[in-house]
Amino acid sequence: MPPLGVELTDRQRLACLHRILAGLGFNENMAGHVTVAVDDDGTMLTSPWGRWWDEVRASDLCLVSPDGDVLEGEWDVSPAIFLHTGIHRARPEARVVVHNHPYHATLLATMGRLPEITHQAACMFDGALALVDEYQGQVLDADAGVWLADAVGDADGVILQSHGAIVIGASIEEATYRSATFDRMCRLTADAIVARAPTHEIAPEHRASLRDAFRTHALDAYWNGAVRMLLADQPEVLQ
Amino acid sequence: MPPLGVELTDRQRLACLHRILAGLGFNENMAGHVTVAVDDDGTMLTSPWGRWWDEVRASDLCLVSPDGDVLEGEWDVSPAIFLHTGIHRARPEARVVVHNHPYHATLLATMGRLPEITHQAACMFDGALALVDEYQGQVLDADAGVWLADAVGDADGVILQSHGAIVIGASIEEATYRSATFDRMCRLTADAIVARAPTHEIAPEHRASLRDAFRTHALDAYWNGAVRMLLADQPEVLQ
Amino acid sequence: MPPLGVELTDRQRLACLHRILAGLGFNENMAGHVTVAVDDDGTMLTSPWGRWWDEVRASDLCLVSPDGDVLEGEWDVSPAIFLHTGIHRARPEARVVVHNHPYHATLLATMGRLPEITHQAACMFDGALALVDEYQGQVLDADAGVWLADAVGDADGVILQSHGAIVIGASIEEATYRSATFDRMCRLTADAIVARAPTHEIAPEHRASLRDAFRTHALDAYWNGAVRMLLADQPEVLQ
Amino acid sequence: MPPLGVELTDRQRLACLHRILAGLGFNENMAGHVTVAVDDDGTMLTSPWGRWWDEVRASDLCLVSPDGDVLEGEWDVSPAIFLHTGIHRARPEARVVVHNHPYHATLLATMGRLPEITHQAACMFDGALALVDEYQGQVLDADAGVWLADAVGDADGVILQSHGAIVIGASIEEATYRSATFDRMCRLTADAIVARAPTHEIAPEHRASLRDAFRTHALDAYWNGAVRMLLADQPEVLQ
Repeated sequence: MPPLGVELTDRQRLACLHRILAGLGFNENMAGHVTVAVDDDGTMLTSPWGRWWDEVRASDLCLVSPDGDVLEGEWDVSPAIFLHTGIHRARPEARVVVHNHPYHATLLATMGRLPEITHQAACMFDGALALVDEYQGQVLDADAGVWLADAVGDADGVILQSHGAIVIGASIEEATYRSATFDRMCRLTADAIVARAPTHEIAPEHRASLRDAFRTHALDAYWNGAVRMLLADQPEVLQ
Repeated sequence: MPPLGVELTDRQRLACLHRILAGLGFNENMAGHVTVAVDDDGTMLTSPWGRWWDEVRASDLCLVSPDGDVLEGEWDVSPAIFLHTGIHRARPEARVVVHNHPYHATLLATMGRLPEITHQAACMFDGALALVDEYQGQVLDADAGVWLADAVGDADGVILQSHGAIVIGASIEEATYRSATFDRMCRLTADAIVARAPTHEIAPEHRASLRDAFRTHALDAYWNGAVRMLLADQPEVLQ
Repeated sequence: MPPLGVELTDRQRLACLHRILAGLGFNENMAGHVTVAVDDDGTMLTSPWGRWWDEVRASDLCLVSPDGDVLEGEWDVSPAIFLHTGIHRARPEARVVVHNHPYHATLLATMGRLPEITHQAACMFDGALALVDEYQGQVLDADAGVWLADAVGDADGVILQSHGAIVIGASIEEATYRSATFDRMCRLTADAIVARAPTHEIAPEHRASLRDAFRTHALDAYWNGAVRMLLADQPEVLQ
Repeated sequence: MPPLGVELTDRQRLACLHRILAGLGFNENMAGHVTVAVDDDGTMLTSPWGRWWDEVRASDLCLVSPDGDVLEGEWDVSPAIFLHTGIHRARPEARVVVHNHPYHATLLATMGRLPEITHQAACMFDGALALVDEYQGQVLDADAGVWLADAVGDADGVILQSHGAIVIGASIEEATYRSATFDRMCRLTADAIVARAPTHEIAPEHRASLRDAFRTHALDAYWNGAVRMLLADQPEVLQ
C-alpha cells in the first residue's frame, strides 16, 4: 500500500485529524473538541479553545489532567472537556473521543434519530450506535461527564439529541475514519427519511465481516491518503 | 485564547464581516447591506452600492447620515438603506444591522416560517426571533423603515416573508457570529420541515445559560478564527 | 457605482457570460449554447461546440449565419443552434438567448413545473415565464426552431420539460443576471415543493416596481461585480 | 472541435478518469476501483489499493491477471477486483468497468431504486439500467464475480443495493462520461422522489436518437474538455 511517507508524532497526527475533519465539514465553525488518552492516569491531549479545527497546528494542542487542568500548552481548553472525561474513564479502549456538530449528524440530532446501516462502510458501526435522547445542557462538570458516559455505553457512534455527535476510536486514525463515515451515514439516512422510501439495511449475516474489514485493512488506506493530500496542501499543520 | 494578532479599525472589521458572510453564502450575488451606528445622532457606516460582499474593502465603506445621504465615501449606497434606519432609531443597543437574502433563510421566507431552537447555538436567538409576514415592497423611505422597525420589535433574528433576513448585534463581531448561526438554523429547520419528522426543541430551562454562553465567551473564539483565516487568504480586505 | 474598469468587446462580454454562469453551476458539463444577435439579418455570435463554458475564451466564439453556418471562427457550432434561431427571428428584442441544463431548472423540468415568484429578484420574470411541456426531441432544424419559438412566446424564463432551461435578455449583461436569478428561483421552488409547505408568492401590486428595479439599476451592479471577480481569477477569458 | 492537444497513453487516460470522477464527487474517500481490459486473455489495468482517486498517477496503475494477481506495478490491488472479472469475461465489449459509491447513486442504493430517464443525457442509459437488489456481501472471489455478472446482464448503469454503482463503457472516455452522467441522473431521481411529484420520462420514440447522439458526437466534447481542465490544474496526473 502507498505509504504515508513521513513519521508523525501523536500531536501531529491529532492536528491532522482536526484539519481532515474540518475539510469534510465535520465542524460547526469554532465548535468541537477531541481528546486522546495518552496515559493510564487520565492525562489527555486535546484541542485548544479558540482555534478553529481548520487552523489547528500540532503546537496548539494542550495536555490536560483528568479534571481538565492544562498541564502543558499555550491555550485554554473548552469547559466542555467533561464531555470526554467520563467516557475515557469508563472505557480504557476508547482512546480517542471526537465531538462536534457536523451538519448531517446535527440534523438527525434535531429529529432524535440514529443513522441506519444501509451501506457497507456503515457496518463499522454495527451494534455500536447510541442515541442520547435526553438533553441535559452543556457537559461542564465531572458528574455530567459520568452521566453521559453511562448514556453512551459501548457505542462508538453517538447522536446527542439537540446537540451533535460523538465518535470514538481506539486510535487517532480510527477516530478520523469513523468520523468521516459517521457524517456520511447521517446524510444518507436524513435524505432517505425525507424520501420516506423504505430503506434496505444490510442483513445481520453480512455485517460482521464488513465491520471487521472496515476496522482493519481499510483504515490505513483511508488515513494515509487523507494525510498525504492534507500535507500537500497545508503543510503548516505539522508545526 | 489565540489572539487575532492585528489591530483593526471599525471600517476594517466591517469589511471583514462582509467577506466572512459572503464566504458562507450569506448573500445573493450583489444584494444586501450592513449598517453600523457610529454616532448617537444616527450616522452610520454602510456598504457601498455595487460592490459585492465578496470584494468589499475597508476603503469602500460609506459614512451616511440618518437619511441615507453619503457624508463620506466614494460610492453611492442602496436606496433600501431605510430598512436599517428605523431599527437603529428604535433600538440604540442594535448597533449593527445585517440584511441579505441568504439561501436557507430565503427558503423559509418563501414559506413564511421561522427557524427553530433545535440545537445549542440556536439558543443565542432564544426569545429574539420575529417573522415579518407582510410583504410591503422595498423599504425605500423613512416611513417604511419605521413600519419595519415596529414589526421587528426586540428581535435579533428576523425572517422577512418573500424577501430575506435581518440579523442584529451589539457589535460587528456579534452580528457576524449571529448571522453565520442564523442561516445554519434556517437550513436545519428547512431540512426538518422537509422530513416532517417531529423535531426536539431545546427545553426552556436550558436555554438561558446557553444563550448567555453563546453571547459571551464563544464570540471572540468565532471572530478571531474567522478573521485570521480570512486575512491569510484575502489580506486586501483591509485596504 | 464601482466601475467595471475595463472596456470589453462583445466577444469578450459573451465569453464572460459563459464563465460566470459555469461558475454558478449553470451548465451540465459540456452542454449548452448562447447566441447573440449581432445584426438584423440574423447573424449570431455563438458558443463553439466542444469548448466547456468553464474554458471559453473570446477568440473561441463563432459568427454564424441564420441557418447556423459558421461564417467566422475556428470551431464548429452545435447542431442544436436551431433552438435559438426561431426565437431571434420572432422577437427582435430578444438579442441574447441562453440555453443549458442547470441542475435546479432541470429538476423542475423533470417534474414539468415552473419556478414561482416567491422572492424579490424573481419579479424580474413576472409575467414572463413559460413551460414548454411537450418534449419533441432535439431542436435540429429550422422548423423545430419555429415550433419552439411559438411555444416560448413572450417569455424570458423557460423550462423545457425533460430537457433544461432557456433564458432570454436584451443584452449580454441582462441575460447573465437573469440566468443567475432563474436557477436560484428554481432551487427555491424545488425545495419548497419538497417541503410541501404553502409558499407565499409576491402580491401582484408589488411586482411591477420590483420587476422594473431589477431590470434597471440592479443590472450594472450585478455585471460589474461578477466580471471584476472573474477577471481577477481567470483573466485569460478575454483572449 | 477543440482538440485535447496532447497524446495520452492508456495508463494516462485511466489516471485521468480517476481524477475527473473524484473531482465530481464520484467516490467515497478511498473506495472504488476501475478495470480496463487490455488483452483478450483477461489481463486488466486497474487502480492501486490505497491510493485515493484524487491522487492517482499513471505510474500507480497495476496490470493484473484475470485472477487479480499483480503482474506489473508497485502496489497491491483491492480484493474486490472480482467485482470486475466476471463482467469482463461475460461481455467482451465491456472494456471498462467503473465501481465506486458516489453519493447520489448510493442514496438510491439504500432505497433499492434505479435512476429514471427524465432528461436528455440520461438516454445514453436507455434500456441499459439494472438494479442488483440482493446484497451478497463483498465480491471477493471468482464465483461471486460470475454471480454478479449474471445479475448485471447487459446493463451499462447499475445500482448495487446497499452498496454503490457500476458503470460500464467500451472505452475509458465513454466510461468517464457515462459515470459523470449516471450520478447526475441519480441526483435528479432522488430529488424527484423526495418531492413525490410525478416525473416526465422521455418518450420511447425520442430515446434512440438521443442515445445515439450521446454515445457518439458528445463523447469527445466531454472528454477533451474534462481532460484539458484537469491537466491545467493537476498536470502530475500524467506521471
